[in-house]
Amino acid sequence: MVRMDNDMPFLLQYENVAWYSKGKVRILDRRVYPTEVRFVECTDYHEVAQAITDMVTQSAGPYTAVGMGMALAAWQARHMGMAAQLAFLKQASYDLSHARPTTANRYGQITGRCVDVAAQALEQDKDPIQAIVENTIESLNRRYSTMQIVGDQLASLIPNGGTILTQCFGETIIGTVMRAVRKYGKDFKVFCAETRPYLQGARLTSSCFAQMGFDTTVITDNMVAYAMEREHIDVFTSAADSIAQDGYIANKIGTFQIAILAKYFGIPYYVTGIPDRDKRSKNDIVIEMRDPQQVLCYRDIPNTVPKVNGIYPSFDVVPPHLISGVVTDKGVYVPYLLNQYFATDVKSFY
Amino acid sequence: MVRMDNDMPFLLQYENVAWYSKGKVRILDRRVYPTEVRFVECTDYHEVAQAITDMVTQSAGPYTAVGMGMALAAWQARHMGMAAQLAFLKQASYDLSHARPTTANRYGQITGRCVDVAAQALEQDKDPIQAIVENTIESLNRRYSTMQIVGDQLASLIPNGGTILTQCFGETIIGTVMRAVRKYGKDFKVFCAETRPYLQGARLTSSCFAQMGFDTTVITDNMVAYAMEREHIDVFTSAADSIAQDGYIANKIGTFQIAILAKYFGIPYYVTGIPDRDKRSKNDIVIEMRDPQQVLCYRDIPNTVPKVNGIYPSFDVVPPHLISGVVTDKGVYVPYLLNQYFATDVKSFY
Repeated sequence: MVRMDNDMPFLLQYENVAWYSKGKVRILDRRVYPTEVRFVECTDYHEVAQAITDMVTQSAGPYTAVGMGMALAAWQARHMGMAAQLAFLKQASYDLSHARPTTANRYGQITGRCVDVAAQALEQDKDPIQAIVENTIESLNRRYSTMQIVGDQLASLIPNGGTILTQCFGETIIGTVMRAVRKYGKDFKVFCAETRPYLQGARLTSSCFAQMGFDTTVITDNMVAYAMEREHIDVFTSAADSIAQDGYIANKIGTFQIAILAKYFGIPYYVTGIPDRDKRSKNDIVIEMRDPQQVLCYRDIPNTVPKVNGIYPSFDVVPPHLISGVVTDKGVYVPYLLNQYFATDVKSFY
Repeated sequence: MVRMDNDMPFLLQYENVAWYSKGKVRILDRRVYPTEVRFVECTDYHEVAQAITDMVTQSAGPYTAVGMGMALAAWQARHMGMAAQLAFLKQASYDLSHARPTTANRYGQITGRCVDVAAQALEQDKDPIQAIVENTIESLNRRYSTMQIVGDQLASLIPNGGTILTQCFGETIIGTVMRAVRKYGKDFKVFCAETRPYLQGARLTSSCFAQMGFDTTVITDNMVAYAMEREHIDVFTSAADSIAQDGYIANKIGTFQIAILAKYFGIPYYVTGIPDRDKRSKNDIVIEMRDPQQVLCYRDIPNTVPKVNGIYPSFDVVPPHLISGVVTDKGVYVPYLLNQYFATDVKSFY
């Protein structure tokens, strides 16, 4: 089986994202990487769902984890009769895809297909576990292949030697844009907003770019305006957890305000990703509210006294008037005209 | 001696800010408060200067610490002849006031006066240490008294039951605005931006407000736009480390971008404090650049790999077009018209 991850940094190598083997799913714990390299091992698909809920893995990591979780479910169901196995897998598909609300539609496309290939395998007296693992890797390859087109497009929008600002950790686009600029013999510098409370920018994005030889600088989330004014940022870019057809997008909390600041300073903001066919408008975007304790402490060290409250919206929503373009596999779209994306044939992405 | 701090939270009680006694200056370590209540003890005035440089104390804390540091210097010089004592104190005044560049002018006003009162005491055969300590407490009382007028003014600008957003920790205004709203029988809610990298908002501001019974919520620095859009913020307010006469102000890094966001959402931004007579324009504002390692780690836990760079500007500069008003002891000024503040008599503040 061909794999598309050979030139990727450690964090993006398929086995490190999430991997099924012999009744276990092993997931790199992105909550502590790169300070620590630690894996969470799951022997029940519910543990995989919980690991996604707990953000052991995030960004595109859950797309792989839900697939590998379905393989684990098939392992758990291996001694059942065919009907019971399929019922078990359908329940697993529901549970895994609902591990987080904002991207449940995307997870569900992957787990639904896992049920289908397992059913096919069982009918043909083949191994459903093997079928699910192969389907998950195919899905990964398909996403890398599609996102390579997006990465190529994004690379063409960054001036050679220029500086981009990123938010959070959009793993597939980070891998593919790095590959693209290297292919074209170009280079750029990266500023990573650290992305509290989990610091995905400081920990994950910065380490990937630095390990691949890019000049990388971390700023705290309150230094964005300073950096835009004094450090010269050419482009702000982020992935998105939802891209609705009316041009509203959801991404990691903080993206909205960086988009406002980019507008203030006249810096283009490019969103990368594939629009969500099933999200007509911002009203279809669900913002996940997480445990406020995460905001009130850092790595379990409390920051303040118990009487103080916190809020932790995991995402925020950016309106189309703050978005310069949505970079897709079919070209760069004006955010108000995303319905044009669906006017032509759309291949399965997730 | 009258003291103005009896109704203040723990963090603002004079003895906890910085205190000279028997050859030692004891400074509350604000870098770990309130998780830990720990004091740094200095037996040499250079250690006091270093503690200010290291941000053991910050906000208005150094105004007290440099005074108490001068008392310590007088203790160190107690066996010298009068001329040598004064020379030693002048050197201490220079060293203490230059512990941080952005507010060196303010520190210098305090330490300069300490030299004067010590000289006077020596001439009159009185104890220069006692004279310096008394002068420092008088200076503290004078600032509290003046800032109480500012606190009263700010309180009148906040709708009863409304919500304010704060940045960093402006200790004197926080104490006096709380006192003012209680006096008027009013109340408000507080959102505190956590203020990376030292989290002064999460640790210091939130604990003060909560301990005094205010409804207090911490948000990470990337949640400001979200909170402004969805949580209803009536007023953004901050203190300032420099207020130049052309209406540009310097405050903790992050203030600039919150001011941009406030403008975007139509939320008034009030700066509190006394304009700097010796800062004609933004060109007189020095931004201190601190150790980037502070941005790349948290409480000594590194966030990323060693190849990654950081930047750490301690402050940023807000232009007057983003400031709704500068709240002073003489009224609320249009930021473009701060020169009017100096058109009338100005009492000594620092």
